[in-house]
Amino acid sequence: MGEDAGRGLECQKIMDGKGNNGNSSQKAIPSCCLKARASAAELEAKCHSTVVSGWFSESQSSSDKAGKMVYFNNPMWPGEAHSLKVESILYKASSDYQEVLVFESSSYGKVLVLDGIVQLTEKDECAYQEMITHLPLCSIPSPKTVLVVGGGDGGVLAEISRHSSVELIDICEIDRMVIEVSKKFFPELAAGFEDPRVCLHVGDAVEFLRNVPEGKYDVIIVDSSDPVGPAQELVEKPFFDTLARALRPGGVLCNMAESMWLHTHLIDDMISICREIFKGSVHYAWASVPTYPSGVIGFLICSTEGPAVDFLNPINPIEKLEGAHQHKRELRYYNSQMHKAAFSLPSFLKREVRLLCD
Amino acid sequence: MGEDAGRGLECQKIMDGKGNNGNSSQKAIPSCCLKARASAAELEAKCHSTVVSGWFSESQSSSDKAGKMVYFNNPMWPGEAHSLKVESILYKASSDYQEVLVFESSSYGKVLVLDGIVQLTEKDECAYQEMITHLPLCSIPSPKTVLVVGGGDGGVLAEISRHSSVELIDICEIDRMVIEVSKKFFPELAAGFEDPRVCLHVGDAVEFLRNVPEGKYDVIIVDSSDPVGPAQELVEKPFFDTLARALRPGGVLCNMAESMWLHTHLIDDMISICREIFKGSVHYAWASVPTYPSGVIGFLICSTEGPAVDFLNPINPIEKLEGAHQHKRELRYYNSQMHKAAFSLPSFLKREVRLLCD
Repeated sequence: MGEDAGRGLECQKIMDGKGNNGNSSQKAIPSCCLKARASAAELEAKCHSTVVSGWFSESQSSSDKAGKMVYFNNPMWPGEAHSLKVESILYKASSDYQEVLVFESSSYGKVLVLDGIVQLTEKDECAYQEMITHLPLCSIPSPKTVLVVGGGDGGVLAEISRHSSVELIDICEIDRMVIEVSKKFFPELAAGFEDPRVCLHVGDAVEFLRNVPEGKYDVIIVDSSDPVGPAQELVEKPFFDTLARALRPGGVLCNMAESMWLHTHLIDDMISICREIFKGSVHYAWASVPTYPSGVIGFLICSTEGPAVDFLNPINPIEKLEGAHQHKRELRYYNSQMHKAAFSLPSFLKREVRLLCD
Repeated sequence: MGEDAGRGLECQKIMDGKGNNGNSSQKAIPSCCLKARASAAELEAKCHSTVVSGWFSESQSSSDKAGKMVYFNNPMWPGEAHSLKVESILYKASSDYQEVLVFESSSYGKVLVLDGIVQLTEKDECAYQEMITHLPLCSIPSPKTVLVVGGGDGGVLAEISRHSSVELIDICEIDRMVIEVSKKFFPELAAGFEDPRVCLHVGDAVEFLRNVPEGKYDVIIVDSSDPVGPAQELVEKPFFDTLARALRPGGVLCNMAESMWLHTHLIDDMISICREIFKGSVHYAWASVPTYPSGVIGFLICSTEGPAVDFLNPINPIEKLEGAHQHKRELRYYNSQMHKAAFSLPSFLKREVRLLCD
């Protein structure tokens, strides 16, 4: 990335395949801001196809055959959108895998967006990163080997580094641009990469896992994008099989598992698959993350057959973990009380996801 | 309300003080849809100042002195907005107190909006109504007398009616239009008014409470709007004094208490006030409600000096309550596990609200 990072505010051809009209005598409205042309007073400094009138919305836009702009929001959460006011766009580019956007929001700090979907904001990333990391790592005594799938921003690594028992942290992220962008704009998260225990593998996780010795890891954390497009196979049975194979007996998987308000069918499917594969235990937990659709995110947490794991009562509580609080980052969301509470589920979820009923 | 309810889709002068231009030869765009003029393809059927391109957003609009439209979002959550796709607008009018809007959304069912702020949607109202009701009512044995402040949609009443020990339910709602609109569009909630134990008082709660005999109620539930404008005094000390006076010794208050992600100062203030006034105990709990700002809502729950109340371990668990599950409405969110979990607080909240630390 290097020179490109934070290169300013001009609209890139790369974003929508169209340039400006070149007429410098009048202030051109970039094509990606067509939607803003009429309704925005303050579009000049905030040029991106997802930003209208100075607000970012999780929506997708494309041109139909007649060249008319068509707007629809993400198929994972039809009919609703969360918008953030944009102070300035800090970075945008297309990687080999996705569109990468970083902007400064007026109320949630810096925001990382991949393919139009908010991945994290400075204000609320703590909830997701801390929960997806400490739910598994505090559930077993002295975790030593950890694999992170995805997680290129480094936030999960930064949280793992609180655990002094850990000796090896493999991370397999497919998109190098995400890592570079995080190093530039989210240094507090990307500091996770500086931990000497971290071994970075840039590539496809399915491929990576094929070559992992059986039973290598105590813990695997799948910090992936939503299962639309490239991440689709990360919620299918063969992938979970590979994950289970890479875990030692009694090893633990924690997998991002969408919103209990919006995705009960997907949760139901994932739990069915995991109940078949993981013979230890399978649970669902959730946390409040304001900038994720419906304001929550879920975690599927499973253990393989072996030493029993009691997820609901952390055997390795963070409050007693030497060094866990002497970290550059304060723990902002997670504590043992939140750990236990995260497994309490609304009645509708227990009814709709048949394997979650008591 | 009567004839006016659901009267269709024409823009009312009452909404923005401007009529159409009267030129019937061309299809006039109503003034309240100016924002939509350029960007919307489907504005015809969805005419309201908060609806743009067929999407409702929590924002406020007004004309400045030069007649130019000015847009800003609610001062309670600057810099973010949640939007819902609108299928059709079912009702809109101005009461003596506020603008009332009901629309059918494409993914959250019918939505009630007051002064541009979502009050409830059919999909997620369960979380708020069930928690604000059963947190207090399940915390004391055999509650008999209950007061609801606000709550004109009837949802809290519908939840209270699960409790057969209750003998009297007073409700004091200032805006009769909210009650009438709920009867028409949210009959499942408004059914709460049909409970013969309910005694409806239309009027100002501050005034009402002045005339209440000391120690009359076992439980008071304050289901009010956000403390901007008319509801401002409902978060101030004199009002809490009046509430405490109306409770019997060991009686319980449950008060809507905003978002832990957005309003720590307000929560801090409310808790400070209540710690002074309520000598029993004061706790903060929260629930996930996707269509409220930041996806959560909090509850301040307090008891007066008298028989001790252990909010964290419900003495009157709903699972053992005769008749509580033989109700027209299924319990969708609340259960005793969720009750206990709701008092678990993120570390940032305990740090920022000094009286919440362990």
